[in-house]
Amino acid sequence: MKYPKSLDELIESFKLLPGIGEKNAERLSFAVLQFSEENANKFSDSIKNVKNKIIKCKVCNNLTEDNDECSICRDDTRDNNTICVVENVKDLMLFEKSNAYKGKYHVLGGLISPLEGVNPEDIKINELIKRIEKEDIKEVILALNISMEGETTSLYILKLLEGTDVSVTKIAAGIPVGADMEYLDSLTIQRALEGRNKLS
Amino acid sequence: MKYPKSLDELIESFKLLPGIGEKNAERLSFAVLQFSEENANKFSDSIKNVKNKIIKCKVCNNLTEDNDECSICRDDTRDNNTICVVENVKDLMLFEKSNAYKGKYHVLGGLISPLEGVNPEDIKINELIKRIEKEDIKEVILALNISMEGETTSLYILKLLEGTDVSVTKIAAGIPVGADMEYLDSLTIQRALEGRNKLS
Repeated sequence: MKYPKSLDELIESFKLLPGIGEKNAERLSFAVLQFSEENANKFSDSIKNVKNKIIKCKVCNNLTEDNDECSICRDDTRDNNTICVVENVKDLMLFEKSNAYKGKYHVLGGLISPLEGVNPEDIKINELIKRIEKEDIKEVILALNISMEGETTSLYILKLLEGTDVSVTKIAAGIPVGADMEYLDSLTIQRALEGRNKLS
Repeated sequence: MKYPKSLDELIESFKLLPGIGEKNAERLSFAVLQFSEENANKFSDSIKNVKNKIIKCKVCNNLTEDNDECSICRDDTRDNNTICVVENVKDLMLFEKSNAYKGKYHVLGGLISPLEGVNPEDIKINELIKRIEKEDIKEVILALNISMEGETTSLYILKLLEGTDVSVTKIAAGIPVGADMEYLDSLTIQRALEGRNKLS
């Protein structure tokens, strides 16, 4: 015997998600079976909605719904002279949640990676440069992962902006708040030392 | 900024699932955003279908679709004289996957648990007894968890069938195949000893 057809289909759908295997997909499908009618409908509808309604912001490449510019680009209260460059929308959300930044963003949608065949023209670098030329940007904050790909991408953007009067900065590398020093790698320690601040 | 509305709704839906927290729900929702149109529709439709189409088999309480009797109950090639009593549909599927059993099933939908307020009349025990009276059942195999609740339920069913000519058996307790003896608890060792078989 196999599961009823629609349950089988639900299990197969869950298995398409990252990190969800056969057993877990079964467990989650049985949980959906216990959902209230209302919650099941909401779940089902929201899947169709994210596929049909969500588009990329034509300015910064962030996600947006019901408008071709995202809510951040449309927000006039935000600082229009600063762009924070992030790899993806999840990273953008981390900065938003921190409440530490009130400027605009630019979502690259990836990092330069020759090994994986991602070239500068595959991510939104040209669009970033065009924005900087067109808008009144005074500072570009590079907020990319400290990895081979992140550093390469940062360097590439820095080169492109050489000679312009835009100030290019990079977020600090160092010891994460709350981390036990014991478990940090040498490279992080090295960066933390290099970036040390004068206290007196 | 918050996520677009439909993405937020999808994240909230994922969070209703067991073991899925905020971060994980975000990760899964972004994965759905990357789904093909076809896969997203399948996922969405299967959620509605499991809620709308799947019902409980009127005979054995297994899940069924498009018919009020499940495929096992309708299968004439299976042994009609044996009922294997399981707690839930997932357990039933484990027996099916093992290919070791070709009789019928009865899904209790729970175990007797005075602590959690589950009484015999809350699970499908009466239905089991009626089936045994009505159908030509020769053996009832109790295949419930070896826990306080499982043992209580097994004992309760055994008492109800005392005096009838139905043979009541219980699946063996012992050492799981492939398990390292070192990590087994004393109770399992005890059960394995009690259930020892004569080899010569």
